[in-house]
Formats: sequence, structure tokens, C-alpha cells
Amino acid sequence: MKNAIEELEAKGKAAKAASRRLAYLSAEVKNKALHNISDDLLAKKDEVLAANQIDYREAEASGMSAAMLDRLMLDSSRLEAIARDVLAVAALPDPVGEVFDMRTLSNGLLIGRKRVPLGVIGAIYESRPNVTIDISVLCLKSGNAIILRGGKEAINSNSALAKVVQGVVAKAGVPEGVVQFVENTDRALVNHLLKMNDTIDLVIPRGGAGLIKSVTDNATMPVVSGGIGVCHTYVDKSADVDKAVAIAFNAKVQRPTVCNALDTLLVHADIADRYLPLLAAEWAKAGVEIRCDRRALSILKSNSSLKLVSATDEDWGKEFLALVGAIKVVDSLDEALEHIEHYGSGHSEAIITEEYAAAMRFLNEVDAACVYVNASTRFTDGSQFGLGAEVGISTQKMHARGPLGVKELTTYKWIIFGSGQVRP
Amino acid sequence: MKNAIEELEAKGKAAKAASRRLAYLSAEVKNKALHNISDDLLAKKDEVLAANQIDYREAEASGMSAAMLDRLMLDSSRLEAIARDVLAVAALPDPVGEVFDMRTLSNGLLIGRKRVPLGVIGAIYESRPNVTIDISVLCLKSGNAIILRGGKEAINSNSALAKVVQGVVAKAGVPEGVVQFVENTDRALVNHLLKMNDTIDLVIPRGGAGLIKSVTDNATMPVVSGGIGVCHTYVDKSADVDKAVAIAFNAKVQRPTVCNALDTLLVHADIADRYLPLLAAEWAKAGVEIRCDRRALSILKSNSSLKLVSATDEDWGKEFLALVGAIKVVDSLDEALEHIEHYGSGHSEAIITEEYAAAMRFLNEVDAACVYVNASTRFTDGSQFGLGAEVGISTQKMHARGPLGVKELTTYKWIIFGSGQVRP
Repeated sequence: MKNAIEELEAKGKAAKAASRRLAYLSAEVKNKALHNISDDLLAKKDEVLAANQIDYREAEASGMSAAMLDRLMLDSSRLEAIARDVLAVAALPDPVGEVFDMRTLSNGLLIGRKRVPLGVIGAIYESRPNVTIDISVLCLKSGNAIILRGGKEAINSNSALAKVVQGVVAKAGVPEGVVQFVENTDRALVNHLLKMNDTIDLVIPRGGAGLIKSVTDNATMPVVSGGIGVCHTYVDKSADVDKAVAIAFNAKVQRPTVCNALDTLLVHADIADRYLPLLAAEWAKAGVEIRCDRRALSILKSNSSLKLVSATDEDWGKEFLALVGAIKVVDSLDEALEHIEHYGSGHSEAIITEEYAAAMRFLNEVDAACVYVNASTRFTDGSQFGLGAEVGISTQKMHARGPLGVKELTTYKWIIFGSGQVRP
Repeated sequence: MKNAIEELEAKGKAAKAASRRLAYLSAEVKNKALHNISDDLLAKKDEVLAANQIDYREAEASGMSAAMLDRLMLDSSRLEAIARDVLAVAALPDPVGEVFDMRTLSNGLLIGRKRVPLGVIGAIYESRPNVTIDISVLCLKSGNAIILRGGKEAINSNSALAKVVQGVVAKAGVPEGVVQFVENTDRALVNHLLKMNDTIDLVIPRGGAGLIKSVTDNATMPVVSGGIGVCHTYVDKSADVDKAVAIAFNAKVQRPTVCNALDTLLVHADIADRYLPLLAAEWAKAGVEIRCDRRALSILKSNSSLKLVSATDEDWGKEFLALVGAIKVVDSLDEALEHIEHYGSGHSEAIITEEYAAAMRFLNEVDAACVYVNASTRFTDGSQFGLGAEVGISTQKMHARGPLGVKELTTYKWIIFGSGQVRP
């Protein structure tokens, strides 16, 4: 373990040293490196897939669930898609070097803020090997060095992918050492990494709630945490019923395992009789289990084809990540706002309404990263928002909120051009 | 202690509840509250000064240093200055409600980011009672509720000032509870406050290095820390000697006890013989003790009127906060950059040069909150930078860097206007 810690610290120092030069490399050099990565992913396809096969067989033998195996699996078309995504990141505008708020003060000082990389980013992730490439290219694009520490289930895949990246970036003129890969998957080593705030500027955990909590609790540097989404859709009394059915169906069913999927549907009492039977019938076709409060249950119980369950207190504020949705009937917009304030996780919240004042109150008063009127919360995503690609979704309030693209991996420094000014 | 903790938690909850309404109050209401505070500070002058007298006498009796007593002391003209500063904050543009990056996506979603307050801010400070008013008005202006916890040396002053604020904001229409004051100055209570990340969104420590470290180490919510400035000024071989003398004199002498004052002067060997005797003579007039490396010492030792000391390793990277300056002769810009990278605290760094390429390299390569060419680092200040007023100076990289004004006490939320969109 002592050797592993020393090795990790050496990697931290190497990343920091490399980050200093990477910080002011031209967009041209960084994009060339990304193109090299994309090309080499295709050129080394056989080696990467062979490494992934080792991980896959071991995981299968150890009894990993089908859903997890699917996350772990790489094949030719998935690898081609990853290589294409790298080119998409290369095509994004370079966030580094933008100068803003530039102005001349009355004493003649020319002062402004210049966008610069954060420095060194630590990525701690689980079994999806594509994260190795995703995070590497987003960090390179934004001028940040990266320390990658993936899960042990994908160690062979991650190692093969990291080697591709490390092997080709220097050819583009990017300093050696900008991408560091931690081969040792010992948990204790992660805890040591989380104390390295002298070399790591930001940690990004990518994985389940357990990983995120453990990283947030133990990190001594800032953490972009998030991904935990307890998302509500509130159907106001004035809602267009067809839109409200389509949106709540999409938000729950289109991809139920992700953080921006609907968890609790709040329905105004004046529209519940008309709306809930229609929505529930659609949900039932997709196999959604419905956890109802007393009033929703009394509206829906006559339809025997529904999977109805009485909601318990624990169902409010729960992230289901499955084909399960909770329904609560409320008497007013205020009650809906209070419920969301109490149970929401600050991720994505929506109102379905045709009433202007209700829409504006919801937008103003809900304190969440993303607040929607008449649309599905499933849109909360860097790519959908036009940020190009995302490193994650933040439910914290500081620095950046919601989907984090390459610009959100930067900070700024003040630059001041003087001609001999001193402070009076 | 149990009662004190319960009371503190109740204050946290009250602040959070109040912050929800404060978040979308109009600028008009908030500015009215600030005007009321300014007026009432003058109206209640006698009570506030009487309370300050109690603190002052106790501090004097306990043997507090003259410098600390001066920080604690309020008089009529200081209180009038504080009241004027409140009006200056009222006159600033309201940072809340600005909408930026607004655009229509190809699916018709209208999407943008809206600037909103952070929520509840905790302020932990020491013996300067003006902080009670400064932080309160900056938080109110930016729509944040505030929990104030000042030092026990100023408890009577702080309490009297907090009562002024609490007494008049409601008259303007600001919700009760937006300003909470912690009367109990037990240290254990601060540690409890630092665990209240369910109600407090950000903690700002204002005071010495010990306070800042203790808050940073123990807080479970984000901390804007900073104020620790190990500031370098590098005099390049091409520097204009007169400018370089004036700037290094100002940076060291104009106010030596603050974080943006010069600590180490780096001088290129080609100009050291010509420059150092002139600068040292000026520093000597102001009583500056000079800690020299071997080469600087050999240049300066012939002048017996200088207070010269041989620098030790600990002098590099030290924040002197006094009329003490270290001097090191370097052979190149690269050596200066490396010294700053190794010893700087990321606060304020300056180069004095007439060479364009050296200026641009310094601006690009130094990783600090504020990087200067040909100007004194003493300008690092919210008011000097045109931010109106500051809550502190951040040397962290996330969220905001350098002086923090009211805009830096805000975040944003994504607002999305749809017409029934679902994700394909």
C-alpha cells in the first residue's frame, strides 16, 4: 500500500506539472490530440475489445446483473460511437482564453477576467468504461489534466482505453502526464486520493448514490456532485391534458433508470379525476408501478389493469430509477411548491399549465438546477441543452448548476494591464 | 449547550424559510431595506456607540493590542462611514434576475440561465463590528439570508448592530428572519454551525489565518476562503526602474497588514545592481526590514542605513502582514515563474516589465486570482475593481476568484419554456 500511495502522489505531481503547460496550449493542439484519440480508438479496436471481453467474462462469472453487464460491455459499434463523440467534443468552441468584463478603470488600469482551466481533475467512476474516454476528452478540451480511477470491474477495459489516450496525445504536442491512470483499484487508495487537495482541484464522482456520498463525505477538495434527481412534475388545474399525459409519460418511461426521470407526479385536485385515469392507463402499458396517495388511489382503483400500491411516507422524496412512479393529489400550486421544496433534490422540476401566472410563479419560486414549463424533465442533459457534452449534472449551487459542459470545467483569473499605477 | 444548539438550528430553519421569499423580492424592496438600515444606524448612533464602549473597555482591560483595539473601535465618524457604505451598496445594480445564454433550441424549447441567490450564507468573523453591517447588506442586496456569528470581543457591538438591521428590514417588506444573529459565542457552537449544510449554502470566514483554516477544515458546506496572500512582484530585466521602485514601494508600504501587500520581491540579475539600492533606500525610509538572499545581500550590504537580514527558507512563501519584505535575485523570467508557482498562494502576482513578450508570458502562465503587469498588487479589492463592495477575496478556483462582490454571492438556475416537448 505504501508503494501504491507513493505512486499515486507521483501521478498527482506529474498531472499538476503537466497541467501548468496544458493550461495555455492552443485550441489547435488540443483538438489535434482529440482527433488522434478518435483515430487510435478505431485503430486499436481489437485490443480494446479483447480487454473488455476479459472484464465482461469475469463479471458474468461473478454473477453481475444483466443491467450492469450492459453498462460494462463494449462492442464495435459502441466503440465507433465513442470515437465519433470525441470528434464532436473536438468540434466544440474552446472555452479557454475567453476574456470578459474587460474595461478601463478611471486610473487607467485595463482590467478583465480571462477564462482558464481549473487545473487537475480527479475522476472516480464505476463500471462504464466509456467514462474513461468521455472525461479524458472533456478535460483535455478544457485544458485540465486528469487522474482517472475507474472501478475494478472494468479495469482491463479502462486500462486499454487510457493507454490509447496516453499513447497519442504527446504526438499532438500535449505535454506528457496530462492523463494519469490509477491501475490499483484498492478502495483505501481512493481515500488517499481524496486528501490530495494540493494537487487535485476538483473531483468528479460518476456512479451510484453510494459512490457519490462516499466521495462527497471524504473529499478535501471541491466535488461536483449530483446525479441524484428526485424529480417532480406538477400538473396544474389549467393543464392541457394531452400535453400533460405525453410529458409525464415521457418523463417516467423514456429512460426510467436515469436521474432526470420523473419520480413523483403532483396533480391539482380540480383536474385529477380527468387526468389521472388517462395517464395511469398509459403508464400501465409501459409496466409502471404506481404508488398512490389516498386521493389518487380512490380515483384509479376502479381500473383493475393498473399496478397500484398505497404510497408510504418513504415514497415521497425517493429516486426510483425504475418503472415506478408516485402520485399525490394537491389542492393548490402552493401545496405543490411546498412539496417540491420539502422533497425535491434540486435537480429538475416541471409544471404543466396553460396559466401564465402559475408558470411564472413556478419558474420563480422553485429552487432547482433546471425548472421547466410544459416540457419533460428528461431534457436535463448537456447535449440536449446545447453544451455539446457533459461531465455530469450538478445539484450543488456553487460554481455551476445542472449539466456541466467544458465551460463549466473552467474558472477565470483577473488580468490587469497597468502603466505604473499605485494605490493612493 | 443543548438549548444553544436547538436555538441555532431554529435560526437556520428560519433563515432558510425566509430566504425562499427573499430570493424573488424586487430590487426596490431590497434597496428600501438598505436605506432603512443606513438611516437607522445614524438614528441609533448613541446606542451602538455605547455598546461598542462596553466591548472596548473590556478588551482594553484584558490587554488587547492597540492594533486589535483599533479594529474593534467605533466612533461617530466610523459609524457615519458605515452608513454611507450601505447606501453605496443600495446604489449597485441588482445581480438577481439577470437572464443570460437565452436561446431557442431546434425543438422549440426556449432555454436560458437565470441568476438567483445562493440561499443562506453563514458569516463567521472576529473583532471588527463593521463586518456585521457589511456582510448583512451585501447578502440582502444579493437576495441571501444570513446567519451572523461574530467574535466574543465585539459581542455587544455586533448585537446592537444586528438589532438595527433586524428592526428595520421588515418595514421595507423584507421577510422576517432574513438576518439571524448568534448571541452565544461558544466555539463548540461554531463547529455545529459548520455541519448545518442542510440550511446553510455557503460559509464565509472573515478573520485571521487560524479562523480560516479552522472553518475550511470543519465546514461541510462550501467555504469561500482566501485572504491569505503570499504576493510576489517580479522586476524584469527590462523594467522601468522608476515605475518599479514606485510600485514595489506602494505594494509593500501603503498598507502592510493586508493580504494584497507585497511579501517577496523577485529581481532579475541584470537589473538588480541598478534597481535594488534605489528600492531598498525607499523601503528603509518607511522602516521596512529586508530579508535578502545571498545575492541581494551582497548588493545592499554597503548601505548601513538598511535593516538587512539574511533570508531563511521559511521567508519564501511567507505572508508577512508587516513592514517586512523578502528579496531574491533570479536569473530569468522562468526562474521567477517557478518561484511563484512553488511559493505563491494564488492571490495577487505582478510583473514590472517594458518587454511585451515577458508581460504576456507572465499573464498567461501565472496561476493566481489576479495577475498584474506594471501595477501594484494593492489594487486587489472589490471596490478598486469596480465591484462596488466585497465580501472577501477568494483564492479558491471554483465559483469565483479574487474579490467577491454581490454578483459572486449568486448562482443561476436553468429556466426552460416548453410547449409540450418530450425527449425522443
